[in-house]
Amino acid sequence: MAHLLSTSCSIKLSSGCKRYSKPLNQGLEAFPTSFTLQASKYPFRSCVSQGQKPLRNYTVHATTLPISKEAPPQPSSDTHQTSNEPSKPQRVMVIGGDGYCGWATALHLSNRGYKVAIVDSLVRRYFDHQLGTDSLTPISSIQNRLRRWKSLTGKSIELYIGDICDFEFLSETFQSFEPDAVVHFGEQRSAPYSMIDRSRAVFTQNNNVIGTLNVLFAIKEFREQCHLVKLGTMGEYGTPNIDIEEGYITITHNGRTDTLPYPKQASSFYHLSKVHDSNNIAFTCKAWGIRATDLNQGVVYGVRTDETEMHEELCNRFDYDGVFGTALNRFCVQAAVGHPLTVYGKGGQTRGYLDIRDTVQCVELAIANPAQPGEFQVYNQFTEQFSVNELAALVTKAGEKLGLNVQTITVPNPRVEEEEHYYNAKHTKLVELGLEPHLLSDSLQDSLLNFTIKYKDRVDTKQIMPSVSWRKIGVKPKTITA
Amino acid sequence: MAHLLSTSCSIKLSSGCKRYSKPLNQGLEAFPTSFTLQASKYPFRSCVSQGQKPLRNYTVHATTLPISKEAPPQPSSDTHQTSNEPSKPQRVMVIGGDGYCGWATALHLSNRGYKVAIVDSLVRRYFDHQLGTDSLTPISSIQNRLRRWKSLTGKSIELYIGDICDFEFLSETFQSFEPDAVVHFGEQRSAPYSMIDRSRAVFTQNNNVIGTLNVLFAIKEFREQCHLVKLGTMGEYGTPNIDIEEGYITITHNGRTDTLPYPKQASSFYHLSKVHDSNNIAFTCKAWGIRATDLNQGVVYGVRTDETEMHEELCNRFDYDGVFGTALNRFCVQAAVGHPLTVYGKGGQTRGYLDIRDTVQCVELAIANPAQPGEFQVYNQFTEQFSVNELAALVTKAGEKLGLNVQTITVPNPRVEEEEHYYNAKHTKLVELGLEPHLLSDSLQDSLLNFTIKYKDRVDTKQIMPSVSWRKIGVKPKTITA
Repeated sequence: MAHLLSTSCSIKLSSGCKRYSKPLNQGLEAFPTSFTLQASKYPFRSCVSQGQKPLRNYTVHATTLPISKEAPPQPSSDTHQTSNEPSKPQRVMVIGGDGYCGWATALHLSNRGYKVAIVDSLVRRYFDHQLGTDSLTPISSIQNRLRRWKSLTGKSIELYIGDICDFEFLSETFQSFEPDAVVHFGEQRSAPYSMIDRSRAVFTQNNNVIGTLNVLFAIKEFREQCHLVKLGTMGEYGTPNIDIEEGYITITHNGRTDTLPYPKQASSFYHLSKVHDSNNIAFTCKAWGIRATDLNQGVVYGVRTDETEMHEELCNRFDYDGVFGTALNRFCVQAAVGHPLTVYGKGGQTRGYLDIRDTVQCVELAIANPAQPGEFQVYNQFTEQFSVNELAALVTKAGEKLGLNVQTITVPNPRVEEEEHYYNAKHTKLVELGLEPHLLSDSLQDSLLNFTIKYKDRVDTKQIMPSVSWRKIGVKPKTITA
Repeated sequence: MAHLLSTSCSIKLSSGCKRYSKPLNQGLEAFPTSFTLQASKYPFRSCVSQGQKPLRNYTVHATTLPISKEAPPQPSSDTHQTSNEPSKPQRVMVIGGDGYCGWATALHLSNRGYKVAIVDSLVRRYFDHQLGTDSLTPISSIQNRLRRWKSLTGKSIELYIGDICDFEFLSETFQSFEPDAVVHFGEQRSAPYSMIDRSRAVFTQNNNVIGTLNVLFAIKEFREQCHLVKLGTMGEYGTPNIDIEEGYITITHNGRTDTLPYPKQASSFYHLSKVHDSNNIAFTCKAWGIRATDLNQGVVYGVRTDETEMHEELCNRFDYDGVFGTALNRFCVQAAVGHPLTVYGKGGQTRGYLDIRDTVQCVELAIANPAQPGEFQVYNQFTEQFSVNELAALVTKAGEKLGLNVQTITVPNPRVEEEEHYYNAKHTKLVELGLEPHLLSDSLQDSLLNFTIKYKDRVDTKQIMPSVSWRKIGVKPKTITA
């Protein structure tokens, strides 16, 4: 795990917080609000920003921004608060809250009245530096994002910068924030990244599995009633020749029947790390009474949510490169810049997809409907199924309406996967809880294509083609060049 | 992972080998054989022992003992050697070859004419120091074991001391030894150990999963036709209410049928690490064409094999303590010293069991019948099923024949597991390949009880009772005291 794990270690900034226990008052942009130190039994963990100019040259290790002006949501009847307690907003920790799905989720939950803290090592931004990639959209620092959010809405989001693989840091965040729910996006989330070289494969499994183990131990030790909402992936299931159920399948075999975990067939070291997580979490639900919901998410597309649209400094990231870009987002960028859509292999690969506006809805529904102690709930989180060829056809058609000349090419499949297969995955549970899906047909032209056209001058076409091969992964650290 | 992982790092001795590139000639016991440096393209990796007195105060980092006098086994027709090559002995690397199953297997394979190398970090011996536990049987150093084996049989076993989580070390062993098959016992193999505290849980998953990933990468990079024989555990399956098949199950669901990996329900961080391994290996078979056999082993009992019986310096370890001891071995020790047999909970827990003489047979059968490139074979490796209550009754009856007064007590179950359940696991594939089981009824009195009686003065009764609770595992490192 050599260079990447040591890199990961070097960005454990949390303990350094003690070195900055006085307010940092230089370099802050003037906002109509100020940031004050929250009373805490852990005085050293909160580093506070007050001031006039943009944060640029130093890190705010933990910014504590208290006091929501909005009426708090009523806690669910299933939560551990008793009726004798005064109604308090539910406290939700979003691990990985600076990332693509995490950022949108943190803002959405804050907007809905939850008391939110973001825990993030910011390693996703670091990956971009290493790989020479960048978001299509310009994104602000997490510090400026939170200041802007506070200035626009009056709502505060706490920030803890550090690595959850560092249990001392994670303990500190739990004891300080005291979450009622933890939404865990804090993993290396790219299949191609995990297949670059041995060290990235090892990093991905170590980072994801140990980080999640630490979260489970933190819940057991400090907040045993806390509900874990964990992001899994539909990719855990692979492409079996039977219908995919939501987490479990009832099997009758030799005259006996049992309901068992649905068999998993993951197809990258990343996807495998999520399978490992699911197995670990299921065990701790049984052994310790952990309450957990696993959201097996499909491929997310889009970038706009109600909250990120409020201001350009709240804009979400949008990845289109060969490592972190997801299929539909990448197709839209390709259409916008006149690059042929790159279909890998035969294009019959079928997956579940969802709009990022549905990601944030689903997470909120999961929080509002917590698992019981000892229960491991599993939901499949997507709204529609498409093959890659179907996506290419939809983008071509929508592009033509906008006057774009969209071509499609076939490129050798860098992955090892079935290119023509049966696929029928259930996804009714979140709909039953109240999910109102945004469908691709309604959003492709306006939310996606017009958006990528707006930013097309920022596209680096060298990043579009696949650069990582499942079969050619080697043992020597691979240096990525632009 | 704090103290244990740093411990693990501190015992990476392999690279230190370069510091001892001259023969070590002091402190060696007189044996009728000498040890000479094997010609190698990696001259620095072999540290050689010649001499007169016992090794005590230094470590031989890699002892190379060439030249088998026995006719080599014919390689299987499935291996990669072509018919034009001269017949050579199959080269088998036994990772974890200083441990309980690994030592017996290494000797057995060497005796059968395979060219054997042991790769081991010796961390199992270190665990005993940490926990204040010890084998019932006195065991010699690995260096003396191998010298004795050479002196008795003329057969050489190479030794590489280092940690397979250190990929540089593992690469060196692969490029030096060039294995045709790798038998991988090199994992932390105790469920209670993995449940002592957070750092041991994290250590177990990190050590086992990353070590196995490294082995897979080493095969891909250096010996792509090498057959991986990986030790899994029957505990991966848990106790489903349907028959347990060997690795895969054919499911008909909503009118369609597929054969999928058998669902796993592991019940400790150790057992989970084996599930993670199985998933990772299955993926690399598919993606890279790795040839692998997963041996889901039951609970092993006994200590004697044809080879370890040859001399007391070849004697295998025999664990009876609450952390590393397995149920039946522990019962026999209890009977021998007049300690009541300790049944955890209701005692209806049913598992598969096998004699260690069958472990070595099964591994040899797996090597002789390698998986095809890209194939992931799974065998259930046990010979008989017993509940804990049935084992207690058998030990009681056999003990009475020897004049022992055997009592049984129920102790609170430290584990979280079903105590009364259906259990019917298939185990026909290894029998079809030629396994001739040793049955417990034939060996309990002579091989087990008389053996434990022989060593009963070495029993530390304080080690017998369970000391690790599945539910009480905490986040602070636990200091074990005797």
